[in-house]
Amino acid sequence: MTATLPSEVTATQALVQPALREAVGELRPAMRRIVSYHLGWTDEHGEPRSSGGGKALRPALALLAAQAVRAEPEAALPGAVAVELVHNFSLLHDDVMDGDTERRHRPTVWRLFGTPAAILAGDALLTLAVDVVERAGDPAATRCLTGSVHHLIEGQSADVDFEGRLDVGLQECLDMADGKTGALMRCAAQVGALLGRASPVAAQLLADFGGNLGMAFQLVDDLLGIWGSPEVTGKPVLADLRVRKKSVPVVAALDSRTADGARLRELYGRTDPPTEEELHTMAELIERSGALAWTRDRAQRYVAQAQTCLDRLHPPPPIHAALTDLTRFVLERDR
Amino acid sequence: MTATLPSEVTATQALVQPALREAVGELRPAMRRIVSYHLGWTDEHGEPRSSGGGKALRPALALLAAQAVRAEPEAALPGAVAVELVHNFSLLHDDVMDGDTERRHRPTVWRLFGTPAAILAGDALLTLAVDVVERAGDPAATRCLTGSVHHLIEGQSADVDFEGRLDVGLQECLDMADGKTGALMRCAAQVGALLGRASPVAAQLLADFGGNLGMAFQLVDDLLGIWGSPEVTGKPVLADLRVRKKSVPVVAALDSRTADGARLRELYGRTDPPTEEELHTMAELIERSGALAWTRDRAQRYVAQAQTCLDRLHPPPPIHAALTDLTRFVLERDR
Repeated sequence: MTATLPSEVTATQALVQPALREAVGELRPAMRRIVSYHLGWTDEHGEPRSSGGGKALRPALALLAAQAVRAEPEAALPGAVAVELVHNFSLLHDDVMDGDTERRHRPTVWRLFGTPAAILAGDALLTLAVDVVERAGDPAATRCLTGSVHHLIEGQSADVDFEGRLDVGLQECLDMADGKTGALMRCAAQVGALLGRASPVAAQLLADFGGNLGMAFQLVDDLLGIWGSPEVTGKPVLADLRVRKKSVPVVAALDSRTADGARLRELYGRTDPPTEEELHTMAELIERSGALAWTRDRAQRYVAQAQTCLDRLHPPPPIHAALTDLTRFVLERDR
Repeated sequence: MTATLPSEVTATQALVQPALREAVGELRPAMRRIVSYHLGWTDEHGEPRSSGGGKALRPALALLAAQAVRAEPEAALPGAVAVELVHNFSLLHDDVMDGDTERRHRPTVWRLFGTPAAILAGDALLTLAVDVVERAGDPAATRCLTGSVHHLIEGQSADVDFEGRLDVGLQECLDMADGKTGALMRCAAQVGALLGRASPVAAQLLADFGGNLGMAFQLVDDLLGIWGSPEVTGKPVLADLRVRKKSVPVVAALDSRTADGARLRELYGRTDPPTEEELHTMAELIERSGALAWTRDRAQRYVAQAQTCLDRLHPPPPIHAALTDLTRFVLERDR
């Protein structure tokens, strides 16, 4: 099954894309060239590409959050652009840190233009994100953004730290996921609410909606990192197990006190690259330990919690429907 | 001759250091540990060190700029802390990009804690800098800071780009130096002036003072990178020539249309590591081409321009004297 983005989400692109291009246009030429490649707007020679870009879920969430509190989507545009810039800052730096050579079926920036270019382009996007949100003139929005960046850094730092450890607990793994993904989705919804002049209660409900949606998103990402279809995700089969990543389903299995979990621990403790047979064994062990079902169930619970926030908020019906569709997309997506 | 920092500059440390520690204390533990090591406050095990830290010229400049327009130094404190955080963000990332293994006679962060830790700690400091300046409640100060970061990134990007080129022109090399060092020194003085509620004319004079001082600082740095005493600078003898860096004196020599410049170009065009004999030849060629004298003269001219800004500003006499001493220190320093 291929889940498609709700039309209200794709409709926000018509507002977000020009604003994003305008912001990136402020960068000096050297950085603009790298960023345009990273965003899928140009190829490695700087020639325009017809398609490109990611799902742009975060800016859509910001615009829908403003509409949920009955503001015009335009009010949230600086926040929407800023969160998308922060998201891409983190992708540029994460690809360097993780040594990932491909993203969205194309060579990563560090791979093509070198590590310094990727670090500097990330730095430039983080700074530009602050510029854009600061101009909206709402200090709470700026603080929401920088607070989420600190969270993001904390999450990525934990992720790196986990690499050298076999004793990662499930709670700290969920905290890491909250930092890596929950924080910026929470910020996207909250910044949209703030710029839409939401009441404190409504802003908090939207922040919680975004945070829960983000956690569900990350858990589904972790499942796709093991069981996703390579031709769809653009990642190798069993990608996360290949690098012995401590993603949520893996840690849930390691932490399961089952014989399958113990056997997985033994395979994860080895240092030589896993064979194809070992990879499939790992995936089976995770499934048999109950961790696959647990992760899927947990993702559904996060979505249910997001739904509860939404129901308490009483947004206009079309926006309620769009945000509900968004939670469904996050659960059912295959890429 | 060892130039010492003017007492008014070192006196600002009493204000800056506690504020800097308070800001860094806001970071989460993992980042705080890395940053405390980088700033020289702790050793690699997290144990406190008695000495530490750099010259902290930039925060001193911010506080003196506020005093130059007859404000209390405390008014500029958020700006002072923010520029010092930005400076250290750039050092952390530059050390990764340049592959430098030592800073201030200690292993660099990436060398000790890994590249991801250095990238993330830099990201955290940049974000923290924005937090600190934003709280001062003056949008112009925040914009001054982020504007200087974009300049800084541009300068570092040019520096990286120059590595693969032999045709670097003198003007673009000076522009690069202005980005790498001029911009943040300009911002330090300007942000101090802005937070000290300077008139637009006074703020501009102080910005120009800082920018000129920064250029002089960078040119002296470039001279020390070739002729500095290793036991004082903590860098290997003829350090910049070893890596065939396109610093200002080098580019001035390459660009000199002299036989010495042509011979240097030939040595710089080689790809194998230079021998000790070649290193000394390079240094001699730069001197004989007139580029050493030119660079020294140019540094003096920047300082003279800074002095002109100061004279037009008419700050209180003790502040005039302190800022004058600062320009002298920048010219005469040996580290």
